[in-house]
Amino acid sequence: MKQITILGSTGSIGRNTLEVIKHFPNEFRVFGLSTNSNIRILSDQIKKFFPEVVVVRDTFKAERLKRNINNKIILLGGEDGLIELSGIKVELLVMAISGSAALFPLIKAIETQPMIALANKEALVMAGPLINQKVKETGTKIIPIDSEQSAIWQCLEDRDKSTLKKIYLTASGGPLKDIDKRDFRKISLEKVLNHPCWKMGKKITVDSATLMNKGLELFETMYLFGVDISKIDILIHPEAVIHSMVEFIDGSVLAQLSITDMRIPIQYALSYPKRLRGFLKPLNFIKIKNLTFLKPDLNKFPCLTFAYEAAKAGGTLPVVLNASNEIAVESFLKRRINFSNIPKVIEKVMKLHKNIKKPTLHDIISVHQWARKKAEEVVNNFN
Amino acid sequence: MKQITILGSTGSIGRNTLEVIKHFPNEFRVFGLSTNSNIRILSDQIKKFFPEVVVVRDTFKAERLKRNINNKIILLGGEDGLIELSGIKVELLVMAISGSAALFPLIKAIETQPMIALANKEALVMAGPLINQKVKETGTKIIPIDSEQSAIWQCLEDRDKSTLKKIYLTASGGPLKDIDKRDFRKISLEKVLNHPCWKMGKKITVDSATLMNKGLELFETMYLFGVDISKIDILIHPEAVIHSMVEFIDGSVLAQLSITDMRIPIQYALSYPKRLRGFLKPLNFIKIKNLTFLKPDLNKFPCLTFAYEAAKAGGTLPVVLNASNEIAVESFLKRRINFSNIPKVIEKVMKLHKNIKKPTLHDIISVHQWARKKAEEVVNNFN
Repeated sequence: MKQITILGSTGSIGRNTLEVIKHFPNEFRVFGLSTNSNIRILSDQIKKFFPEVVVVRDTFKAERLKRNINNKIILLGGEDGLIELSGIKVELLVMAISGSAALFPLIKAIETQPMIALANKEALVMAGPLINQKVKETGTKIIPIDSEQSAIWQCLEDRDKSTLKKIYLTASGGPLKDIDKRDFRKISLEKVLNHPCWKMGKKITVDSATLMNKGLELFETMYLFGVDISKIDILIHPEAVIHSMVEFIDGSVLAQLSITDMRIPIQYALSYPKRLRGFLKPLNFIKIKNLTFLKPDLNKFPCLTFAYEAAKAGGTLPVVLNASNEIAVESFLKRRINFSNIPKVIEKVMKLHKNIKKPTLHDIISVHQWARKKAEEVVNNFN
Repeated sequence: MKQITILGSTGSIGRNTLEVIKHFPNEFRVFGLSTNSNIRILSDQIKKFFPEVVVVRDTFKAERLKRNINNKIILLGGEDGLIELSGIKVELLVMAISGSAALFPLIKAIETQPMIALANKEALVMAGPLINQKVKETGTKIIPIDSEQSAIWQCLEDRDKSTLKKIYLTASGGPLKDIDKRDFRKISLEKVLNHPCWKMGKKITVDSATLMNKGLELFETMYLFGVDISKIDILIHPEAVIHSMVEFIDGSVLAQLSITDMRIPIQYALSYPKRLRGFLKPLNFIKIKNLTFLKPDLNKFPCLTFAYEAAKAGGTLPVVLNASNEIAVESFLKRRINFSNIPKVIEKVMKLHKNIKKPTLHDIISVHQWARKKAEEVVNNFN
C-alpha cells in the first residue's frame, strides 16, 4: 500500500488523482490532503478517503471546516500548515497545486519525500535550476504528471540520455487554433474556456488558448529531463493522441499515445515503476483515423516566442514571464482585459525587467512580486 | 570493434547492412559474408570489406569465384559451407537469408553465436517453437531487423512483459491498397513490384502486395516476443511512419517511428544496446502532415486470414502456409499464374494438409517439401 499525500486535492488534477486512487483500494492509501479554500469538496474527500492530515490554506475557511470534521483528523491551516504537511514523509507526494503557490511546499517536499509526482509547472519555470540542485542533493525522484512530460518520461525511461537528439513537445493548438488572430480581441471568455480536448482548471485552459501552457512546458521539459532548449521542438497536433515524442540520435522516434484523459498519466505517476490495469477505454485507431501535425504559428501566439526567449535567457526572466502571465490570465478571467491583451501585458513587463542571471530563491520571490505588481499596473493602464 | 558475419550479404538486407557498416568503420568489422549465387556483388563486397571467410552456396559459382579472389580469404561452398560459417563464433551474426533456406543456418547460429540480428521471418514461421526452445537452451540473444519487429523491440525494451496488453502491427497496405479486388486478376507483375514505401527484394514485395508479409510477421511477433496471437492486431497505416506500437495494460501506447529506410532498424540491430548517430535524414513531421489508420480488408487480402488461421492452429499448418506461399509467389514472379491465384494456391494446399501438432524438425522439413510439391501441382493445374 503506497501512502500518498495530495497537495491541491480539490483542483482538477487533485480530484482526478483521487479518482484513480479510488479504483485501486489495495494499492494506494491517502495520508494527507490540502486545499486552498474549497472546504466543500475537501469535506467530501475526507468522508471518502479518510486522510490522517488535512490542510486548508485559507485560515478562515480552516476554522469553518473544523466544526464539521471528525476530531481524529489533524487539521492544519495556512501556509505553515501546508509546509508542515509537505514535510511529513509519505511514499509519494502528489504536487497538484497550480501556479507559483506550489514553490515553497515543493521545496519542502523535495527535502523530505522520497518520491514526488509533479503536476505543477510554474515552480519549475520560476526556479528550475534551484529545484534541480535540491533534487540532486536530496536524491528525491520526481515523476511528471503532465501528459506531455509523462509521455517523454515513458519514451526515455532508463534510456541513455546521451542518445537523445530532440524532443517533440506536442500541443493540441487549443480552442483558438482555427480562429483568425484579428478576432482575438472580441473572443469571449466562454469560448476560451471551452478546450477541444482536455477538461482542466481555468488558468491552464486560458494558458492553452494563448499557447503559454506549451511555453511553460518548455521549462518543465528542460528541467525534468536536463535538456537544452535548442533540443525541444513544439509541434501542433490537434487530435492530442500523441502526447509527445523523443527522437534519438539514430533517427528512431518513440512516441507515447493515449486517450486524452489526465487519469492515464496520473495513474502511471502513482503506480510507477509498475503499471496497473487501467479502467478507461483504450485508444481506438480505427475511430481516430487521422493524426495530423502542424507548425506552431508564432505570429498568432506570441506567448510562445516570449517563452522561448525567457528559456534561452534564463535567470529571472522566466519568473517575470510566469508572474505577468498569472496576472494577465487572472485579469482576463475577471473580464478586466480582453484576450489579445494577455500577451501584451507579458511583453511589457518582460521588457521592463533587468535579468538577474543566477538568482537566489530570495531574488526569485522579489522578482515574482515585482512582476505581478508591474503586470497589475499594465492591466490598469489598459482600462 | 564488433566482428560481424552476414549471411545473405548480396540481398537487399545484406547490402543495406554493409552500407550501415561502411558508415561506422570504428564500430564494426566484417568477418564473414555469404551469398546464394550472386558472385558479382559478393566480389565487390570482398574488395570493400575484406572478410576473412566467404561462402557461395551454389558450388558451381563458388568455383568460379575462387579464380578471382585473394587466396588469403577462406572460400567455402555449398550448404555445408554455409553451416560452417554459421558455426564460427563472432560477436554478431546477421541472418539476412530470405525464405526457408535460412532455417538450418539459423539453427546452427543459435547453437554458436552470442547474438543474432534476424531479418528472416520464414524460419520462425516454420519452426518458431523449436527455435525458441533452442534460444532458451543456448541463451543467445535475438535482435529483430524487420522494421515492425524492431519497433516493437524498441517500445518493449527491458520493460515488464506482463504489462503488455496488445501489439499493433502496422502495415502500409502495399501497392494494391487502393485497387479493386476484381482487378487483381489482370494486375501486372510490374505494378506489384512497385511498392509505395519500401525498396525490398522481389519475394517480400509480392508478399507485401498480398499482405502475406504481414501474415508472416504475425508469427515473427508471436515468437520473438512470446505473445499470443490474440494480442496482435494488424493496422493499415499507409504512410509507414509508425512501424508498430505496443499498448500497455494501463492504456498507454508506445510507438516507434522513423523514415521508411531499412538502414534505421538495421543500424539499431548492429549497434544494440547502444545507439549510434545516424547518417540519414530524420523524420519531418511538418512535411508528413498526416498519419492515417485503417482496418485491414480481410476479404480483399485472404492471405491474412490464412495466416491468422495457421497461427491459431500452430503445428505444421504454418509450414504449409509458408511453403505454398513460396511456390505461389515464385510462380507469379515467373508469370506462370496471375496475382489473384496466389491465395488460391495457398488455400488449396492448406486444405489438403493434416496438421501435426507438435512437429519435430524432421516433420517440419517433410511437410515443407510436401507442401511445395502440392503447391507446384496446384499451379500446374491452373495452366
